[in-house]
Amino acid sequence: MEKETPKGITPRAEDYSRWYQDVIAAAELADYSPVRGCMVIRPHGYAIWERLQASLDGMIKETGHENAYFPLFIPESFLRREAEHVEGFAPECAVVTHGGGKELEEKLYVRPTSETIIYSMFAQWIQSWRDLPLKINQWANVVRWEMRTRLFLRTTEFLWQEGHTAHATFEEAEEEVRLALDLYRRLSTEDLAIPVIPGRKSEAEKFAGALHTYSIEAMMQDGRALQAGTSHHLGQNFAKAFDVKFQDPQGALQHVWQTSWGVSTRLIGAVIMAHSDDVGLVLPPRIAPIEAVIVATWSKSSDERLVRDALERVRPTIPPSVRIRVDDRDKFHLAWKRFHWERKGVPLRLEIGPRDVKASQFFAARRDTGEKFSIPFDRAPEEIPRILADIQRSLYDRALRLREERSVRIDDYRTFREFFDGAGGFASSPWCGDGACEAKVQDETKVTIRCLPFEWPADEPGPCVVCGRPAPRRALFAKAY
Amino acid sequence: MEKETPKGITPRAEDYSRWYQDVIAAAELADYSPVRGCMVIRPHGYAIWERLQASLDGMIKETGHENAYFPLFIPESFLRREAEHVEGFAPECAVVTHGGGKELEEKLYVRPTSETIIYSMFAQWIQSWRDLPLKINQWANVVRWEMRTRLFLRTTEFLWQEGHTAHATFEEAEEEVRLALDLYRRLSTEDLAIPVIPGRKSEAEKFAGALHTYSIEAMMQDGRALQAGTSHHLGQNFAKAFDVKFQDPQGALQHVWQTSWGVSTRLIGAVIMAHSDDVGLVLPPRIAPIEAVIVATWSKSSDERLVRDALERVRPTIPPSVRIRVDDRDKFHLAWKRFHWERKGVPLRLEIGPRDVKASQFFAARRDTGEKFSIPFDRAPEEIPRILADIQRSLYDRALRLREERSVRIDDYRTFREFFDGAGGFASSPWCGDGACEAKVQDETKVTIRCLPFEWPADEPGPCVVCGRPAPRRALFAKAY
Repeated sequence: MEKETPKGITPRAEDYSRWYQDVIAAAELADYSPVRGCMVIRPHGYAIWERLQASLDGMIKETGHENAYFPLFIPESFLRREAEHVEGFAPECAVVTHGGGKELEEKLYVRPTSETIIYSMFAQWIQSWRDLPLKINQWANVVRWEMRTRLFLRTTEFLWQEGHTAHATFEEAEEEVRLALDLYRRLSTEDLAIPVIPGRKSEAEKFAGALHTYSIEAMMQDGRALQAGTSHHLGQNFAKAFDVKFQDPQGALQHVWQTSWGVSTRLIGAVIMAHSDDVGLVLPPRIAPIEAVIVATWSKSSDERLVRDALERVRPTIPPSVRIRVDDRDKFHLAWKRFHWERKGVPLRLEIGPRDVKASQFFAARRDTGEKFSIPFDRAPEEIPRILADIQRSLYDRALRLREERSVRIDDYRTFREFFDGAGGFASSPWCGDGACEAKVQDETKVTIRCLPFEWPADEPGPCVVCGRPAPRRALFAKAY
Repeated sequence: MEKETPKGITPRAEDYSRWYQDVIAAAELADYSPVRGCMVIRPHGYAIWERLQASLDGMIKETGHENAYFPLFIPESFLRREAEHVEGFAPECAVVTHGGGKELEEKLYVRPTSETIIYSMFAQWIQSWRDLPLKINQWANVVRWEMRTRLFLRTTEFLWQEGHTAHATFEEAEEEVRLALDLYRRLSTEDLAIPVIPGRKSEAEKFAGALHTYSIEAMMQDGRALQAGTSHHLGQNFAKAFDVKFQDPQGALQHVWQTSWGVSTRLIGAVIMAHSDDVGLVLPPRIAPIEAVIVATWSKSSDERLVRDALERVRPTIPPSVRIRVDDRDKFHLAWKRFHWERKGVPLRLEIGPRDVKASQFFAARRDTGEKFSIPFDRAPEEIPRILADIQRSLYDRALRLREERSVRIDDYRTFREFFDGAGGFASSPWCGDGACEAKVQDETKVTIRCLPFEWPADEPGPCVVCGRPAPRRALFAKAY
């Protein structure tokens, strides 16, 4: 009975956007809240975030960063100190005008990002070259007023981490920006099983106040791009605005060089859209709160003892590193339980009933392929971790294959427009570097330059796909979330 | 040279409040921020919070609660639905009136606590008795406008967890409220090494909107009480305001019974005030980000190899569960390093220099007692964990002794006033239960009823310490943070 598309989930082919919402609802990942544009992250969704957080937090600490916490509120005057920054962020802020029953003398902005408040503290903490590098990270909520929201992908409030560092030289800051981007690449490829293309953002798409911005770009199943992490070289822009200076070994005062970088709960949206199918959520084992569920089942109560005894014997043989849930609830039928765990995206389902006990094996089903097979009890300790690793790899490979199938080199604008009028995907096309060409493409096709990839496509000159003038290299064009 | 009170820390006896601020500054735990009443939690302070969080989060999950995340903003109309609740919280809220460049139709309150927004979701999620109990926890920032702030203890924004549950009966909710309080008792006694007195709050001190509130109360070194966790039985008050109903097994619709409970970053303030001394911070090993520091030292560079080789040999023999930092920085002197780690509150310092290597031992110093002794390298694997456990226990015992020394039974108001005019502490006195007596005491002495202890003092009737009328039992009176 599980072969049919379960009621309640719209097939991808019919309406991709509806499908996305249905998958989230069926897996109980999140809900819209009564507050416009804000979401409630439900326990299963939050548990994915905790997995993702634990992995990234480990990498952030291993690379010498320390966590700290800065205020939610930013005085209006702080936001105004960096000209590009205020222009980029002020219009989308939530503004606190009253506190403790009184009108405030100075308005407070709910942080849309924390450069300004953090660097005002850096100015106090940094005196000498001995205080550098200063490498801080913050896990926090931020607010950016959004008119059109979509669960996880674009919400007025979201959760994220923001790294903020200060260095003695441009080169050291550049190294840090690349390092942060590489942490995100690892998180995405190793944990989320999503291949990404790292590269530099165009001037139009860079962070408000940065010298330049790097990003990693992923392809979703509908061929659209999703920006899965950004890392900004801030140069000395904020250091000058907030007077963050250090005395170098020769005794001279210099402004520091800074970086900031962040990923958010939007990554959960990326996971959903990269891997799920018409049955519901599909999770890569490494970020699945539950990697394998053991569904225990019996019809006669005399069989219950049999099944429970077998479970008690076999369960301890499975390595404790595998996150397992046993579902031995009486109040639900087997079919309901199968359906329930499928929609929750649990990578591996193991069923155990009286007949399985007699055969000394689990009846197993892979969530990614739907493949059914048996696992003898005595092979379970090795087989379960092996299958989970295989699911992790297969999901990555499938996502990479999809991206390759939908990535093309396009050298003329007519083909370019036809490509994006059709199914679309990633186009590698020469670009002259002129913002006017970039804007024209966006106006006419809603396609944007996702990044100037470090590696893909190659650094080939050619005539700009828009204007025909000489282009020094290719850019990655796509419609984006 | 470390025997002198280091410059910058005011002795407790001179000015307790100044001492508290100095300890925080010297240990680099937190800073006031440019935003009125808000603090910046610096890496060392945040790392303590992470330890505390990890421990409590484990207990919360083990007892069947799941983490989730709800919006920062609460529509004004939501806060108004529960009459006592809005009266208690609205005056201390920060209010968002503008978003995305426009004035909002309905004001949004930055959450001071999340009952209202969470229970509006519970109303959607709960249909049947099968959906109960619903046991949710949230880690979040909250904002309560404060006129007089103090780092960690009272700040406009703070970090906390808030548990929110819904049950089918009063009794189940009551069991949950007691369970939550017991988790806090364990956290406080086992991890923070702070003995606490659990009890019920008076009507005047209960949570706005609750049937009754329980708390745990700790004594700080100056004899004042600090409320270290609260747990509220909300009855059906919010269920009625937000229409949270379930169908019972007989098919009848009933309102759920609810609880909420929370602890916050104020616990870090409790740790500082319970254990630190005139040298600076003292941390219990279980929540110390660094339990032991190995300070490596040499004067001739020919000795460096010797010391490093020894370290490489001994370090791996220490169990990996011990959080160790090796300080082998060349740019600081031994005295500077000693001083640095003492002020950071690291429980155990191990020094290793050429002479120590030759004697095959560490030169060790306990932060709690100042005791100095040597630990032979081959004994280090057992000795280090043993000493850390001993420090943890000793700190608890010391705090308990202090509390006992400053806890008295007082039966008449004159002695009561003399006690609190003097050094003060905890007074166990009969109370008739009348809010007027409670208010009189507070007006005249600034002393409040901390709780009606479950166990201490005993449930003895007697004449009320204030009015002389019959009192059914004793209350715990103290000045409080």
